[in-house]
Amino acid sequence: MKFVTAERNGEIFVGVIHQEREVIDVRLAEQVMYGDITLPSSLLECIALGEAFTDKVRDIVKWIEQNPSEPYVYPLQDVRLLAPIPRPVKNIFCVGKNYVDHAIELGSADDIPKHLILFSKVPTTVIGHEATILRHEQVTNELDYEGELAVVIGKRGKAIKKDEALDYVFGYTIINDVTARDLQERHQQYLLGKSLDTFCPMGPWIVHRSFIPNSNRLQIETKVNGETRQKASTEQFIFNVETIIATISQGMTLEPGDIIATGTPAGVGKGMKPPRFLQAGDVVEVTIERIGTLRNYIGE
Amino acid sequence: MKFVTAERNGEIFVGVIHQEREVIDVRLAEQVMYGDITLPSSLLECIALGEAFTDKVRDIVKWIEQNPSEPYVYPLQDVRLLAPIPRPVKNIFCVGKNYVDHAIELGSADDIPKHLILFSKVPTTVIGHEATILRHEQVTNELDYEGELAVVIGKRGKAIKKDEALDYVFGYTIINDVTARDLQERHQQYLLGKSLDTFCPMGPWIVHRSFIPNSNRLQIETKVNGETRQKASTEQFIFNVETIIATISQGMTLEPGDIIATGTPAGVGKGMKPPRFLQAGDVVEVTIERIGTLRNYIGE
Repeated sequence: MKFVTAERNGEIFVGVIHQEREVIDVRLAEQVMYGDITLPSSLLECIALGEAFTDKVRDIVKWIEQNPSEPYVYPLQDVRLLAPIPRPVKNIFCVGKNYVDHAIELGSADDIPKHLILFSKVPTTVIGHEATILRHEQVTNELDYEGELAVVIGKRGKAIKKDEALDYVFGYTIINDVTARDLQERHQQYLLGKSLDTFCPMGPWIVHRSFIPNSNRLQIETKVNGETRQKASTEQFIFNVETIIATISQGMTLEPGDIIATGTPAGVGKGMKPPRFLQAGDVVEVTIERIGTLRNYIGE
Repeated sequence: MKFVTAERNGEIFVGVIHQEREVIDVRLAEQVMYGDITLPSSLLECIALGEAFTDKVRDIVKWIEQNPSEPYVYPLQDVRLLAPIPRPVKNIFCVGKNYVDHAIELGSADDIPKHLILFSKVPTTVIGHEATILRHEQVTNELDYEGELAVVIGKRGKAIKKDEALDYVFGYTIINDVTARDLQERHQQYLLGKSLDTFCPMGPWIVHRSFIPNSNRLQIETKVNGETRQKASTEQFIFNVETIIATISQGMTLEPGDIIATGTPAGVGKGMKPPRFLQAGDVVEVTIERIGTLRNYIGE
């Protein structure tokens, strides 16, 4: 199941992708099927319902397959996909240097972390699939991409054990952890260089965890203007998804809707010789196996 | 004007302190005075109204002084103060090493920053005045305090100029930027060591900026069990409030209710020889001139 937040005729709704080419408006479908609407209006609130949400959506999808062509099913091209969680209720967690080759390309073997590196991006950075990343040319000369697998937490928890960590995952999405390299370096702590407006493209959807047999074994690829820049597998994680969740939650309560970007592989613009930063007009695409492709454009 | 979020008989309300010893429930007072309630139910939403909120509260206070002993005025000791913004809608911004002596006590003169250091604490860290800071003894052996002046943003803005920065301030409060020093060091980026549950005591109230003639000239003092540990003036800021706001907002939109802790002066437990970390049963008090005292207890 691929969950979306989408907009059609000015209305924002929670949807589920059907047969790769349609979107079901789950609350409208619920109303027709059950006679009333119990699902909340945002995907974030739906996620907090846990299995009550996913079970209901499964029932809705089954029912729709027996009742096709109803007015709550739209062709995918008729809707605009927003970020699945357009406004997270806290900063997005981001893991730094979680692939050996990336740690080395930005420094040396000394930079391979022994302990999880965790920073964040403010919620005002979030944009959706196909949206424009601002160039911010007054602020940075070193605009860079970072394709990343992101984990969406589904259940509240603290001191989560590694072997139970995946029970706390609702699903997975793609994030481009856009970075102003000059700000990242100048300000030491990463927050500022990671948090300019539009610096967190997210989507196109959240794939439910039941469709991802092993999140620590997914191909990930980033292209700029069609040229492959990053190509790796999450098998290369230094800290896998279970370790990340256990480490973050050791003294901090994780909540439904929390988003954790798991770090980027080698191949960022800063790591090339000479560096190749993003320019106005560029197209960046991040593709992750079993999830899809997140595409964004660099604006003026 | 000192604005609070408070609880009485299980009800949470927005209040304003009156004559240092009473709290006015501003929405109840509005209802009696105007016949209906237009103010929102959270201080965060009230702040977003800008001067419409503060003007109305001024009118309410004037009117109450002519109509004393009404049922919407409570003795301060009959209410429990929560953090003025109990659940910020993004992480709390924090400035690192913003006092020369503190940068040196945790390192050397080489650690005095040339550029703003900015990190964050998650919203789940926030607790109020008189609340208990968890000891987290399974996670940290180095629990430490950091008394700080915090700025509360009142108006949305981006690329804010230094000479207009104070127009974007709603008011000021006190934050104890509680830190697990071992985690802060081990994980390189500060987020984890700063974000354990209960690590952001805030309050007791937000003082409106009209009552703070110069936020870059306030005495600040932190006591542990009555012993003075930090004593300084915000005159010693490396980056003053205007510079902080201008630097953060250069490419990032600031929003009403955003909170920026401005850094801590010398005298933290980690900087003492030998270090003296917080223990269960300790009392930490942060006092800032013209604001008040934020007091918290270290739990088991």
